[in-house]
Amino acid sequence: MDGYAVRADETTGASQSNPVLMREGVDCVRVHTGSPVPGEMDAVVMIEDTVTGGGMSVGGDAGEGAIVEIRAALHPGRNVSQIGEDVSRGDVAFRTSHQIRACDVAMLAMLGIMDVEVFASPKVAIIPTGSELAPRSGKIAEGMIRETNGLMVSTHIKQWGGIPDHRGIVIDDFDLIGTEIAASVDEGCDAVILCGGTSVGARDYVPDVIDTIGDLLVHGVGLSPGKPTALGIVSDTPVLSLPGYPVACLIALLEFGLPIVRKLGRMPEKPDRIVHARLGAKIASKIGYRTYTRVSVDGDVAHPVATSGAGIMSSVTRSDGFVIINEELEGIDCGDEVDVVLIE
Amino acid sequence: MDGYAVRADETTGASQSNPVLMREGVDCVRVHTGSPVPGEMDAVVMIEDTVTGGGMSVGGDAGEGAIVEIRAALHPGRNVSQIGEDVSRGDVAFRTSHQIRACDVAMLAMLGIMDVEVFASPKVAIIPTGSELAPRSGKIAEGMIRETNGLMVSTHIKQWGGIPDHRGIVIDDFDLIGTEIAASVDEGCDAVILCGGTSVGARDYVPDVIDTIGDLLVHGVGLSPGKPTALGIVSDTPVLSLPGYPVACLIALLEFGLPIVRKLGRMPEKPDRIVHARLGAKIASKIGYRTYTRVSVDGDVAHPVATSGAGIMSSVTRSDGFVIINEELEGIDCGDEVDVVLIE
Repeated sequence: MDGYAVRADETTGASQSNPVLMREGVDCVRVHTGSPVPGEMDAVVMIEDTVTGGGMSVGGDAGEGAIVEIRAALHPGRNVSQIGEDVSRGDVAFRTSHQIRACDVAMLAMLGIMDVEVFASPKVAIIPTGSELAPRSGKIAEGMIRETNGLMVSTHIKQWGGIPDHRGIVIDDFDLIGTEIAASVDEGCDAVILCGGTSVGARDYVPDVIDTIGDLLVHGVGLSPGKPTALGIVSDTPVLSLPGYPVACLIALLEFGLPIVRKLGRMPEKPDRIVHARLGAKIASKIGYRTYTRVSVDGDVAHPVATSGAGIMSSVTRSDGFVIINEELEGIDCGDEVDVVLIE
Repeated sequence: MDGYAVRADETTGASQSNPVLMREGVDCVRVHTGSPVPGEMDAVVMIEDTVTGGGMSVGGDAGEGAIVEIRAALHPGRNVSQIGEDVSRGDVAFRTSHQIRACDVAMLAMLGIMDVEVFASPKVAIIPTGSELAPRSGKIAEGMIRETNGLMVSTHIKQWGGIPDHRGIVIDDFDLIGTEIAASVDEGCDAVILCGGTSVGARDYVPDVIDTIGDLLVHGVGLSPGKPTALGIVSDTPVLSLPGYPVACLIALLEFGLPIVRKLGRMPEKPDRIVHARLGAKIASKIGYRTYTRVSVDGDVAHPVATSGAGIMSSVTRSDGFVIINEELEGIDCGDEVDVVLIE
């Protein structure tokens, strides 16, 4: 507090009409918010409750030896912060696995701690597969498509606190795919994410590759879009095989990639950013499939974005978020209240 | 689709029991998901609906000139993606001020767009003021405290997409504070945030400085903690003066600093990350003050964290989030449902 540090017992009986007179620098000491209180003082009288200059003015610096009228009686400790009242010796400031926020950075600095040990960010290999894929820059040949799923996955991995390691395009070749997964694991990647080659076509080698060099745990999930997703383990490293259709790739990444990154990085789960809305039109879904419907939000209405397949990326880029329909439901009616999970 | 590209009208009448025979490479062409369909073909029959090798096996590559049994009749366009079905010439992919998300990065790459013009991240000057402040590293003298508010503000500005410019500590001196604000503006900062010196004590110069070199718009707000906050304009640049008490500093930053950064960076408003909970104990608040109560969340119960002032930073660092009480209310009862805004 801005005011005068005093010995509380010397203010007994002081009031507006009956001030106690003190000499500045002797009986009382001028202090400001944040100042230390001299050792022999135990309370601070607010500047508003003091008069200097012979009753002419409230507060201010009286000057060494000048008389200060103290016009309030105080208990010991009044307006004084005690040592250790925030954090004191022996207190636990943060436990293991606490994720450091901006306020926590400040607390650590208050404690004089400049460095703390943290869990490493997980390094995630990203392997786009497909003989039809071309690098993103420059002209591309007829019949080829630009590699963009790996870019999208890398962007999300970084956003989620992981370190993306984009390994470059691998063509549809059983051995080359296996070699790249093994190399990623050998080079210390904590997880491997492949894009494409996970369906049941003649060129869809990824699930078989995983099962040959490791263990394929799941192939095919109740997710729409995203059904062909596969999950496996190679040399104790989780491997996630995402569909090549870009919308399915994104949604399977949100469902399975995000928890992998969080778990490996020991990051706490965070709630999504949600907007509440009423559905502007009925949406259908198949029982048994957790279904991601793309919606655009206008005021408090969520309008389903017309879609015709998991390859139509503009159905996502024109959307603000997803309405996620549980596998037990068969769609949601027009006008129903829904949570829209914002796309980030 | 994985299968054979065909001319749809040549499949008329084809069925499982009545296949149409075609020569590979002449009447039909082997294609994979993502392959281009040859110009004279207009549909793709799925591999599951074909037989090669004289009826011995389903699907597979028959080989140039070999006979393929087509066992399904198709309409033109079946299983073929049309050029422009996602985005076509003349479509607007993104409008001005659209914030680019991971899916949008992928869409831009699909369109072959490697560079897009974006709004600059706002540069925010951060000026901690106070004669009691010492740099964070090393030993500090008796009566001094480490500068940590500026660090906390910088961390948040970066998290929100701005560029923090921590200007270093300025002592409680009217002219030096004014000089530093003016220098920040001259050097192109888009906003100035000061910490400390905004209350009504003898050394609280910041509001007067703002009013002298610019316009003080507001001094004192209905926010608890955070009441002494001041807002002003210096040379068309917004200036935010935050309280020096660390909890008040943080809360006034969340209320006023975040919208300043978003607005200057043309970033859309985002909903907070919210956890729904029941209040584990009654909390009080003063009418007229928007009150931030610190709570820790255990399951679906939000427990108020005991506090004794805006200087007790551990009241924040031990909390998971805030229950924000509107200025019209006088507290919230135990057991009431509340939204907890997570601290990030």
